[in-house]
Amino acid sequence: MKELVFGHKNPDTDAIVAAKAYSYLLNQLGGQTEAVALGEPNDETRFVLDHFSEPYPRVISEAGSETKQVVLVDHNESQQSVDDISDLTVTHVIDHHRIANFATAAPLYYHAEPVGCSSTIIFKEFKQSGVDIPQNLAGLMLSAIISDTLLFKSPTTTDVDIAVGKKLAEIAEVDYEEYGLAMLKAGTNLSTKTAKELVTSDAKSFEMGNKTIRVDQVNTVDLNEVFARENELRSAIEEQNKDNGYDLFLLMVTNILDSNTRLLAIGSGQDVVEKAFGQGLANDKMDLPGVVSRKKQVVPPLEEAFN
Amino acid sequence: MKELVFGHKNPDTDAIVAAKAYSYLLNQLGGQTEAVALGEPNDETRFVLDHFSEPYPRVISEAGSETKQVVLVDHNESQQSVDDISDLTVTHVIDHHRIANFATAAPLYYHAEPVGCSSTIIFKEFKQSGVDIPQNLAGLMLSAIISDTLLFKSPTTTDVDIAVGKKLAEIAEVDYEEYGLAMLKAGTNLSTKTAKELVTSDAKSFEMGNKTIRVDQVNTVDLNEVFARENELRSAIEEQNKDNGYDLFLLMVTNILDSNTRLLAIGSGQDVVEKAFGQGLANDKMDLPGVVSRKKQVVPPLEEAFN
Repeated sequence: MKELVFGHKNPDTDAIVAAKAYSYLLNQLGGQTEAVALGEPNDETRFVLDHFSEPYPRVISEAGSETKQVVLVDHNESQQSVDDISDLTVTHVIDHHRIANFATAAPLYYHAEPVGCSSTIIFKEFKQSGVDIPQNLAGLMLSAIISDTLLFKSPTTTDVDIAVGKKLAEIAEVDYEEYGLAMLKAGTNLSTKTAKELVTSDAKSFEMGNKTIRVDQVNTVDLNEVFARENELRSAIEEQNKDNGYDLFLLMVTNILDSNTRLLAIGSGQDVVEKAFGQGLANDKMDLPGVVSRKKQVVPPLEEAFN
Repeated sequence: MKELVFGHKNPDTDAIVAAKAYSYLLNQLGGQTEAVALGEPNDETRFVLDHFSEPYPRVISEAGSETKQVVLVDHNESQQSVDDISDLTVTHVIDHHRIANFATAAPLYYHAEPVGCSSTIIFKEFKQSGVDIPQNLAGLMLSAIISDTLLFKSPTTTDVDIAVGKKLAEIAEVDYEEYGLAMLKAGTNLSTKTAKELVTSDAKSFEMGNKTIRVDQVNTVDLNEVFARENELRSAIEEQNKDNGYDLFLLMVTNILDSNTRLLAIGSGQDVVEKAFGQGLANDKMDLPGVVSRKKQVVPPLEEAFN
């Protein structure tokens, strides 16, 4: 029976690429796996897959009808995983996030490191196994690292991500600066998206205290362009909170050119958000200079303030 | 600030050795760590440390007064860890057990594999880092593998454990069969132990369903010698259940020569134990031929039957 390999819901480039890369490696080592996705690729990921002539992955909403064993990449928390995850056996995890809401009945392979991108860890797995990375796959993995680290500018970036990214650029025969900027810009085409798409496409849920916090991130090259649509975004967020029972919704709008974020916080617990970031909200908004990383700069202070 | 490295409560040989070995490796790579233990070494571990002239580790009952950062080896579940684990930041985990009751606020280094022994994984960490294993440390790590795999006879044993064990035996210049039998026998000297010592020295707690299950394992070369003390053991177990609120206590008495276990089950949920192993209890006991591994042959069927 084939094992399915997938990243988190609302897949970003790393979620889709890491699944493809790790599935390829497992199969080279004798496994029988297929990389799938828990959602359609976003604009950035389409740009990446098209650029390297790689097919889009099959999208699934449940796994139990075709397998009992799954491999998770770029996530571990059950609410970010496939809906029927509790009925499945997780055999491997490759991840670079905190561990939470994750439990297994049996031992498993788990390789996590506090680096900027899951694909960086998968590069190490290739090296350890002595398996070569094909040129196109190297291009995909490089793209995932550029995406997660915002071209090595995010504070989640480690020396290892930079070294691995440069090696992958060599294998892929890509000028990573030029390619990276084009790729990031391809992901910021917000004008064609509905407000609902903007508040759902990269959103993740977190359990903190007894609350469900939804955190979405939208990358842009112009904050004003996004906040010109603030009323629309507010309505879409209120609808999300109501329909899905989120206690609090945080929309991070991040300018990838100057590495700043403006936060829009809607729901209960705004006082805790103010405590977490040490400043007040004005009309539900605050500016977070230098903040670009949900995982490293937004979730930990929230976690601490809520618990 | 020094990070503390430790294995689980009621430490067995792997819990103590893996802490020593991983602390040594981290320090070689520039870390500042100290290997400590959450309990005194048992008879087997004393034999090992004495044989290779290694000092006994310092025993701690809490870590927060001396550090905020800790490294876990050979466990991850909070109830098996230091009492104040929830106040500490876990930076690394090296383990070969299921993941449960474990959560972090931030990303960390986590390397788990479904192999027989944590020290097998640490051997791989040495190789990946290009750090040599000193002769005495190789002897300790070999001892941990022999202990956890019962000289490669437990079903938890993988080909990797055997290959790593043989390499370590070469580095340590030890005849692993002869040394291994002597070491295992050193751990089965039960006559000098009180019933309370027997039911606590290798016991671990597990949350299953809404119950707290305590599972202890005693190795012997003669089942009858242990069950001659059954009344004493029953009293000690009932006291454990009462004093600590365990719902159910399972004592695995394992004959390491012929690889069989006799189980004594005391507390509520005996019907679930019968379901888990597909046979009835007679006077609270059942024989489990071929069963030697708590982790692989006892916990998973219990987990399935309780959940």
